[in-house]
Amino acid sequence: MFVVEGRKSIHEFIDNGFHLIKLFSVNEKYFKGKAIKILKSDLKKISFLNNPDDHLALFKIPASKKIDYSNLILAFDNINDPGNLGTIIRTCDWFGIKDIICSKNSVDCFNPKVVQSAMGSLSRLNITYLDLENLISKQSLKTYGTFLSGNPIYEFKNELKNGIIVFGNEANGISPKIEKLIEFKLTIPKSDDRLYPESLNLSSSVAIVLSELFRRNQ
Amino acid sequence: MFVVEGRKSIHEFIDNGFHLIKLFSVNEKYFKGKAIKILKSDLKKISFLNNPDDHLALFKIPASKKIDYSNLILAFDNINDPGNLGTIIRTCDWFGIKDIICSKNSVDCFNPKVVQSAMGSLSRLNITYLDLENLISKQSLKTYGTFLSGNPIYEFKNELKNGIIVFGNEANGISPKIEKLIEFKLTIPKSDDRLYPESLNLSSSVAIVLSELFRRNQ
Repeated sequence: MFVVEGRKSIHEFIDNGFHLIKLFSVNEKYFKGKAIKILKSDLKKISFLNNPDDHLALFKIPASKKIDYSNLILAFDNINDPGNLGTIIRTCDWFGIKDIICSKNSVDCFNPKVVQSAMGSLSRLNITYLDLENLISKQSLKTYGTFLSGNPIYEFKNELKNGIIVFGNEANGISPKIEKLIEFKLTIPKSDDRLYPESLNLSSSVAIVLSELFRRNQ
Repeated sequence: MFVVEGRKSIHEFIDNGFHLIKLFSVNEKYFKGKAIKILKSDLKKISFLNNPDDHLALFKIPASKKIDYSNLILAFDNINDPGNLGTIIRTCDWFGIKDIICSKNSVDCFNPKVVQSAMGSLSRLNITYLDLENLISKQSLKTYGTFLSGNPIYEFKNELKNGIIVFGNEANGISPKIEKLIEFKLTIPKSDDRLYPESLNLSSSVAIVLSELFRRNQ
């Protein structure tokens, strides 16, 4: 099971067919017949938030669906920060990405902080955990990766309408064993050649790459 | 005073002329003559991090510098989340923005979580807190704002080489009194006209807008 907090998000998971196990609510009128009334003081004890919303739900973790390789897919090699993954899920949802792949050592997408920062978007994306190295070596898909040095994303001529774009770990980037398998190296250029800042935040990088692809494919 | 944790970030603040008040270090060899040795167990007690780095410094909050209105400036109307502001500072540094303006009710840029997520970039940006309404009404600068409905950023023809781009609060967007003063409304288009997701994360929106401006001004 996993926890979803907040009225809007809970409604999104219900509307998208997730199996609701239990729903606790300070004000049940928002969930007719579905919620168990709870005191705010009790909700505070079970909430993961510092300032809990009035509603907390438990849903069943769904079986993962088949990955649709005809669309562009984002893959994450050891993504660590739950806030980053949640923000990325929200950005992917905005730009119409349907599938995300995470390496097995990545943060769990049903971690409460991921669910919270994804703001309901987790209910619309298919997230699969698998051996990235194995997938990339066996699939015949085009494989792109984001690096600190590569082809500037703005000048890259390929349309990137399908294939896999790999993003690396927050501190260490893409691991050497995955880097070896990547066909096209992409980079987000910095305004000048100063040493600092050394990198962009991971979720900001994903937002920039997806925006740029969306712009050129319009 | 404000707290900076982590070897790299502390070095960046020192190198950029910030006044160091005290520096506690588990391993002083990284800061010759500047650090006071501290036990890891004591550092853990004073650190704001769950997994503290070996170094914690106190710097003096500098006097704010004059805003350079000849460059493009980002302004934030009631930005609330310290992680967002920190990430935004890092992204601004990446794309060469020098000045950020925050409304007076915004989160403090010297909040430890802002400093942490800005990863040293706070040492290179000038951040000024002032009455946004007053500033925009009195300055003759072009004023842009990001909204859920406006001109798609990709089609907007203006170069945006100077002026002010206003971003709103995480939950409520730009406040009505500021919206009235904004000349050009910009938006980041969604992949289709679904109701959800309702918005993008604030720091992701900033990353997208800055990347798009940087691309077209290259």
